[in-house]
Amino acid sequence: MILARHNKFSIQLVVFIWSLLFSICSTAQEHPNLILTAQGVKDIRAQLGTIPIFDKTLKAVQEEIDAEITSGLKMPIPKDYSGGYSHDQHKRNMILMQKAGVLYQILDDEKYALYVKELLMQYEAMYKTLPIHPKTRSYARGKLFWQCLNDANWLVYVSQAYDCVYNFLSVEERNTLETNLFRPFADFISIGNPLFYQRVHNHSTWGNAAVGMIGLVMNDEVLIQRALYGIPDLEMDKTAKDDDGGYINKEGKAGFLANIEEPFSPDGYYNEGPYYQRYAMYPFLIFAEGLQNVRPDLKIFEYKNGVLLKSINALLNLSDADGEFFPLNDGQKGMSYFNSALVSAVNISYYYGNKDQGLLSIAQKQNEVLLDDSGLAVALGIKNGEVKPFVKKSINLSDGPDGTQGGVGILRNEDLELVFKYAAQGSSHGHYDKLSFSYYEKGDEIIQDYGLARFVNIEQKGGGNYLKENKTWAKQTIAHNTITQNETSHFNAEFDIGSKFHSDLHYFSSENKTIKVVSAIDIHAYPGTEMLRTMALIKDEDFEKPFLLDIMKVNANKANQYDFPYYFMGQLLKTNFEYTTPETLVSIGAKNGYQHLYLEGSAIPSSENSKLSWLNKGKFYTLTTVTSDKDELLFTRIGANDPEFNLRREAALLVRRKNVQNTLFVSTIESHGSYSPVAESAKNSNSTIAALKIVLATEDYTAILITVVNGNTKLFITANKNASKEAKHAVKINNKNYAWVGAYFYN
Amino acid sequence: MILARHNKFSIQLVVFIWSLLFSICSTAQEHPNLILTAQGVKDIRAQLGTIPIFDKTLKAVQEEIDAEITSGLKMPIPKDYSGGYSHDQHKRNMILMQKAGVLYQILDDEKYALYVKELLMQYEAMYKTLPIHPKTRSYARGKLFWQCLNDANWLVYVSQAYDCVYNFLSVEERNTLETNLFRPFADFISIGNPLFYQRVHNHSTWGNAAVGMIGLVMNDEVLIQRALYGIPDLEMDKTAKDDDGGYINKEGKAGFLANIEEPFSPDGYYNEGPYYQRYAMYPFLIFAEGLQNVRPDLKIFEYKNGVLLKSINALLNLSDADGEFFPLNDGQKGMSYFNSALVSAVNISYYYGNKDQGLLSIAQKQNEVLLDDSGLAVALGIKNGEVKPFVKKSINLSDGPDGTQGGVGILRNEDLELVFKYAAQGSSHGHYDKLSFSYYEKGDEIIQDYGLARFVNIEQKGGGNYLKENKTWAKQTIAHNTITQNETSHFNAEFDIGSKFHSDLHYFSSENKTIKVVSAIDIHAYPGTEMLRTMALIKDEDFEKPFLLDIMKVNANKANQYDFPYYFMGQLLKTNFEYTTPETLVSIGAKNGYQHLYLEGSAIPSSENSKLSWLNKGKFYTLTTVTSDKDELLFTRIGANDPEFNLRREAALLVRRKNVQNTLFVSTIESHGSYSPVAESAKNSNSTIAALKIVLATEDYTAILITVVNGNTKLFITANKNASKEAKHAVKINNKNYAWVGAYFYN
Repeated sequence: MILARHNKFSIQLVVFIWSLLFSICSTAQEHPNLILTAQGVKDIRAQLGTIPIFDKTLKAVQEEIDAEITSGLKMPIPKDYSGGYSHDQHKRNMILMQKAGVLYQILDDEKYALYVKELLMQYEAMYKTLPIHPKTRSYARGKLFWQCLNDANWLVYVSQAYDCVYNFLSVEERNTLETNLFRPFADFISIGNPLFYQRVHNHSTWGNAAVGMIGLVMNDEVLIQRALYGIPDLEMDKTAKDDDGGYINKEGKAGFLANIEEPFSPDGYYNEGPYYQRYAMYPFLIFAEGLQNVRPDLKIFEYKNGVLLKSINALLNLSDADGEFFPLNDGQKGMSYFNSALVSAVNISYYYGNKDQGLLSIAQKQNEVLLDDSGLAVALGIKNGEVKPFVKKSINLSDGPDGTQGGVGILRNEDLELVFKYAAQGSSHGHYDKLSFSYYEKGDEIIQDYGLARFVNIEQKGGGNYLKENKTWAKQTIAHNTITQNETSHFNAEFDIGSKFHSDLHYFSSENKTIKVVSAIDIHAYPGTEMLRTMALIKDEDFEKPFLLDIMKVNANKANQYDFPYYFMGQLLKTNFEYTTPETLVSIGAKNGYQHLYLEGSAIPSSENSKLSWLNKGKFYTLTTVTSDKDELLFTRIGANDPEFNLRREAALLVRRKNVQNTLFVSTIESHGSYSPVAESAKNSNSTIAALKIVLATEDYTAILITVVNGNTKLFITANKNASKEAKHAVKINNKNYAWVGAYFYN
Repeated sequence: MILARHNKFSIQLVVFIWSLLFSICSTAQEHPNLILTAQGVKDIRAQLGTIPIFDKTLKAVQEEIDAEITSGLKMPIPKDYSGGYSHDQHKRNMILMQKAGVLYQILDDEKYALYVKELLMQYEAMYKTLPIHPKTRSYARGKLFWQCLNDANWLVYVSQAYDCVYNFLSVEERNTLETNLFRPFADFISIGNPLFYQRVHNHSTWGNAAVGMIGLVMNDEVLIQRALYGIPDLEMDKTAKDDDGGYINKEGKAGFLANIEEPFSPDGYYNEGPYYQRYAMYPFLIFAEGLQNVRPDLKIFEYKNGVLLKSINALLNLSDADGEFFPLNDGQKGMSYFNSALVSAVNISYYYGNKDQGLLSIAQKQNEVLLDDSGLAVALGIKNGEVKPFVKKSINLSDGPDGTQGGVGILRNEDLELVFKYAAQGSSHGHYDKLSFSYYEKGDEIIQDYGLARFVNIEQKGGGNYLKENKTWAKQTIAHNTITQNETSHFNAEFDIGSKFHSDLHYFSSENKTIKVVSAIDIHAYPGTEMLRTMALIKDEDFEKPFLLDIMKVNANKANQYDFPYYFMGQLLKTNFEYTTPETLVSIGAKNGYQHLYLEGSAIPSSENSKLSWLNKGKFYTLTTVTSDKDELLFTRIGANDPEFNLRREAALLVRRKNVQNTLFVSTIESHGSYSPVAESAKNSNSTIAALKIVLATEDYTAILITVVNGNTKLFITANKNASKEAKHAVKINNKNYAWVGAYFYN
């Protein structure tokens, strides 16, 4: 702490000198130059009225701001958590200023500049004497908001507003604002809060962008450097952790560039998953846009092989057919590419990237654009009929700064999408779910990933913050569609341990038009246990739609209990096994997430295949799984020990295998037929699979024979060891020889 | 039975003579004349290519039939229940024939006539020797299908096909078909199955229409008379009941006209509710259309003051904002005016009614029309730009043949819709839920009515038929948003008793633009107990949206326990009372539906108002209910004792008041604010009501004072006795005098 204070003092001195220098020469810079540019404003003004999507966005913004100007300024004393009045109003004010600034530039109407100025001056007046926010829950309390993070959000937006009205203000007014508001604000969220700022974390990215953007507008090199590289010479406690259990600064890295470097893999996958990537995306891209405009020499969009633009492509591919992001790790369902951060992302990616016409189709769906140079380019592209569909294909996204820490594989085949996670921990927002999956059809969940246990910004639910069930349920392994061994989560749900390891890709194959396969291995989740999961999404003419084949091979150094749930969405229709249902519902365990699951039914399999059919949103689904009479089948429902009704009451079928050392879990999931409550007709409501059989199970190969109801058979063989594209394989099954090249065989 | 056989013989004789006569003179009749007319065909041909919605429908039908002709005829031996192959194929064949017949007429292409002819001939060949259907579950087994009802469906469609190809067939072919197929078919479903045919019931309506329509085509007066008036001189057992517990023929009425007379109220409400009305509608209207065309002298559309056309208006008004029918009684959710029966209804209502341009907007949404004279009229109306919105207003629909057996009141105010049921039993599909309600916003349920416990035509669920939970749960009072006394359903859930009684309207008021009120009384559900429920949907400037005020006044001759559930849809957000949640879930009772409810939480109210807020589909809701510390609040969830997972796991808050004689349940339900998972912003997420208080409770008046969070107060007074529009009232509350004219006061 003494070190930090010392640093703080010396940095403040440097800042003072720099700012003195820059306040003298700053008029030399042209404004706006951050997001809007002087040339861009000219171009936009020239095109106004002829670019429908831009005109529409502008009109909506103008109506919104005009109404706000009429209703008058609101400047509450900060006091609430997220969802509360003061929080929401200051959040709103930052957006209003940013929008009004843009309107001033585009429409050249001083009333908008005046509105921004008045708000800024009121903030200046308040901020001068504003104490730290009264709410105490955050590790880094802000001043306008309960957490620094929101203060940083504010400055990212307000920097843009300031840039837009810069020339409207007198030098004196600018000095007042910079001296009493912007510089202390930037210092407070950085030097004043190193736990927040000096870190590789999405919070810090906002902090970096905030400091950097106001630095760019103020032409303040100290702030710009602090944004890019972090607070110089600041030593942090490398063992400290945040409330989520994440390390604050284990490796001493900080600043915007480190925040690009660390969390993004070379493929553009963001280590916390798409929900947080979406949140982090805006500061990454808006600051990058500012840097590109003001400091083009930095070539920020080429940094790390152009990872910022790649990350947008990755993010768009991490969404379902409706554009909703797959809720990997702590992700709130429903978040989608309709979020305003994605409007920025799509526009910026189009303009600063290679003008991918597929992005125009997403911009068209978003039905709004950025009111800047990039938005103009998108609007012109749409106007000129250059729109092409954005085709999402099967894609494998590596995880880790250098792409070697596992990844996420997405298989797509017609309307079906498999999301398979074999990534690293995912930072403090990671879940303990190695080799888990979720499964979608046309944007509807077939097999769900629960997502987070939180109602973001809904004050009534724990202030809109993470609920305790996020830790006790959502993060636990049993909440996911993967193996839980001995009723204990992966890595014992210990963040330190989980953060050390990742799963590894065995192979990913999407070249074949009809068969897509991903296979990955994990040897760390349970020491002594090796899990190899191979998932294939297969289009076969004997099936109405592609079906999913799921092979989980477990090798262990001792006998264990394996629990293997399928969180199916919908109403149970039929099973091929007899089950009993209890009179009273009791949870199936006391800890590790099991305390949240009621046992609703149980069975001993009565045949070699256990089948479950269900109906969801007008479609039929059937799970067929290879079982023996030593297995148990449990119907569970989420909701036990949930004293505040924080969890959704949703079902699973859990396959339990006790006292087994090595084993194979083999299942198929078929989507078939349809039901219309309007026509009341059920089509193709039965499974197409007559039998599912393991016909070979060696260390080297697993072979599954699928017998179709029409009598045809399909054989899938996967290579458990050498899965290279060139590898030659030969096996004998039931006295028949099979030979092939590559990781798998299907016929 | 001997009587029936005797009748059968003599009727067959008459039929023989008649048919002899008619086969000689039948060529005298013009064909088509049933649904399509010769003049209509001319008009359609003249307009083809210029009437978009008609052309589109025609094209779709043509593509469908062309594909079928290519794939070849399918004529399985009848053997399955609903959802099975033979069932579905014969159902499909009837539609294919009807459509192909129409195509032949409109396109004048003989391949369609040939296709119909081939199918008819194959049916003729099979039917001659076809035994009764092997499946035994029905009280009236068919031949092509497991129940006569489906055989009747078939004949309704095939009559139309026959009419279309009548002139294409030779006299000999017609004789073959009529002698071996149509006449025996019509006889089998009528004379052969009097339990099915000779009745006032939606099944019989199909039977009547089937017999009548083939009669019209064959110009067979015996069949036509049998259709209109039932089987002559047939005596039925007046005490017999069907599987659903409904009387088969208590009053000896039968035939199409009796089926119009009995179930429709003068307002057009169908006694079983909209779901079954939709089902019954097609035979009512298609036979009526045929009668209007062939026997215009009958003036069928003027019968009973034009009740058939009125019923269409009633039915459309019994749908929510998405066009889905309110699931009163046994109704399957999701059925809507997009059902093909409603295409017929809307087209026929437009053409034979007063050309209501509002109907055109529904036809536009349906995006298809009948391929007949009425569909042509609709298509021309749309083409000529005559479309107007179909505005659904607050409406009161009386129940009972003469409109004196209670009814259903629908209050609409902005986007909110209250459905209040004070009807008669609703025949065998009725539920025991006097004075129950459901509540909707923009087509989403706020407070749900459970509907039926059935998966119609989904074979895996009890053959697609009613599940036992329909009786043990869905029909029971506790499954509904009304009072259950002493844990026993209304009328002890005895159909005989329930069928004798109905609730009565106290008043319905929808003249006021901002306040809509319905009030009804029931004195029969529990002998000795009088329930008066008054529900008001009030738009008030202090509230964001209209709110619902619910006043249930109970007077009893002894102390009872009253259970008053609210089946709220969505995720619980907050309560203003402390509750405990049990470790294990146990059902709250052993019978009368209680066995299906788990207790998930319980509380003793801690203040005079108990509040529950929840979130559903992006909107916030708050229930505020007047309570005392003698009440109990129970959180329940459906699903106990449900060994086949037939029930949906949905929640309720149940207010329990024990050992009380007279009491008032007073609640408000507010819809407020919004939550977007994309913007992650929660707007207006808190209740606007600070206090809800009963300020007057006499035999004559109930007065409720609502204190708004801004300090304003609202007073609602309802007259419990004299509720006429002219009645003058004066009361003193807290020493202040209030005087008004009419049933209620609000200020």
